Amino acid sequence: MTEKVSGAVITRLPRYYRYLGELLEEGIDRISSRELSERMKVTASQIRQDLNNFGGFGQQGYGYNVRNLYDEIGKILGIGLTQNMIVIGAGHLGQAIANYANYGKRGFVIKALFDINPDLAGYSVNGAPVYPLSRLEEYLGENDVKIAAICIPKTHSGEVAKRLVAGGIKAIWNFSHLDLDVPEDIIVENVHLSESLMKLSYKLNYKSEK
Amino acid sequence: MTEKVSGAVITRLPRYYRYLGELLEEGIDRISSRELSERMKVTASQIRQDLNNFGGFGQQGYGYNVRNLYDEIGKILGIGLTQNMIVIGAGHLGQAIANYANYGKRGFVIKALFDINPDLAGYSVNGAPVYPLSRLEEYLGENDVKIAAICIPKTHSGEVAKRLVAGGIKAIWNFSHLDLDVPEDIIVENVHLSESLMKLSYKLNYKSEK
Repeated sequence: MTEKVSGAVITRLPRYYRYLGELLEEGIDRISSRELSERMKVTASQIRQDLNNFGGFGQQGYGYNVRNLYDEIGKILGIGLTQNMIVIGAGHLGQAIANYANYGKRGFVIKALFDINPDLAGYSVNGAPVYPLSRLEEYLGENDVKIAAICIPKTHSGEVAKRLVAGGIKAIWNFSHLDLDVPEDIIVENVHLSESLMKLSYKLNYKSEK
Repeated sequence: MTEKVSGAVITRLPRYYRYLGELLEEGIDRISSRELSERMKVTASQIRQDLNNFGGFGQQGYGYNVRNLYDEIGKILGIGLTQNMIVIGAGHLGQAIANYANYGKRGFVIKALFDINPDLAGYSVNGAPVYPLSRLEEYLGENDVKIAAICIPKTHSGEVAKRLVAGGIKAIWNFSHLDLDVPEDIIVENVHLSESLMKLSYKLNYKSEK
């Protein structure tokens, strides 16, 4: 993979990965782009185009080798690499994220949680210790961690993001309602839950108006 | 509002709402599309175009009345309406969602959680009782609830979605890793956390290859 791949393709890759995993679970080891297209409800030509970005794993008249494609996309997505992560905020959301992401299969390992409430220090979530937020810099100096999830309110998330970046964090999984102001080379993936809920609410309202 | 608004605009509305709320908090009651554009890092012409969909609240030479625009967009998004919601799954994620969404300001009220583990029945999360999943139909028959959040693994989410729809649920906030197969008139908002994390991982890998 030498060319830069478009954001839209990247957004679709995890979905391919998920569907291919389901096929493997069902014992299906070969699939045509047409069959995959029916399952995923995207056009066969989009599938061919998307997967061509990664060297085109399909063969004319044979279709795709599911295991092969699954493994290749997994590699592209960094699945199987061990990736250390910390979680900022040990409240309900932080704990949910720590429990959620903390399984070996995908390679994400939650090493620690940090909370502004020093009373939480000493607890652990799914085996990962909770430290006071004041120890963040010290921790980042001593541990190889590139990914941080921010699970605290927006009142503090901007300031914490700056501390994370200063400490060497390269990618932020941001659950706070703030568009983080970080240098361009820092990767930010936003999950704005309230915006998702508002979208749902909008659609529900709009529908009932008709 | 009589015309159907495009999905892309709807996706951006909650973000407008968030920024306008921040302006109000800062005591700013009037803003030009240019200033709003600088804050939100979208073009001024996109802002004008987006907001025109809703009757164009701006005035030439004056800009936007922030409170007005905030309230109007809020109405469109259904903010302030009381919207009852149930949560399927009382694990970490379900609890986080119940705690997260359960505040009066936005109008979403978590009425109950349901879990397949009957031992959790009798507990409550932020004031909302946890019931055994077997009581779902009975509950939906007796209560006016239109929204359900699905916070259980994909092994059961498809079946539960069918039960929700049969029970009268009109909108599903889906956190399970499954594209739900529901009738077209049912609103589904997906939050695929693992796909978001994989995207982050991809970007991190790709960057380090360069």
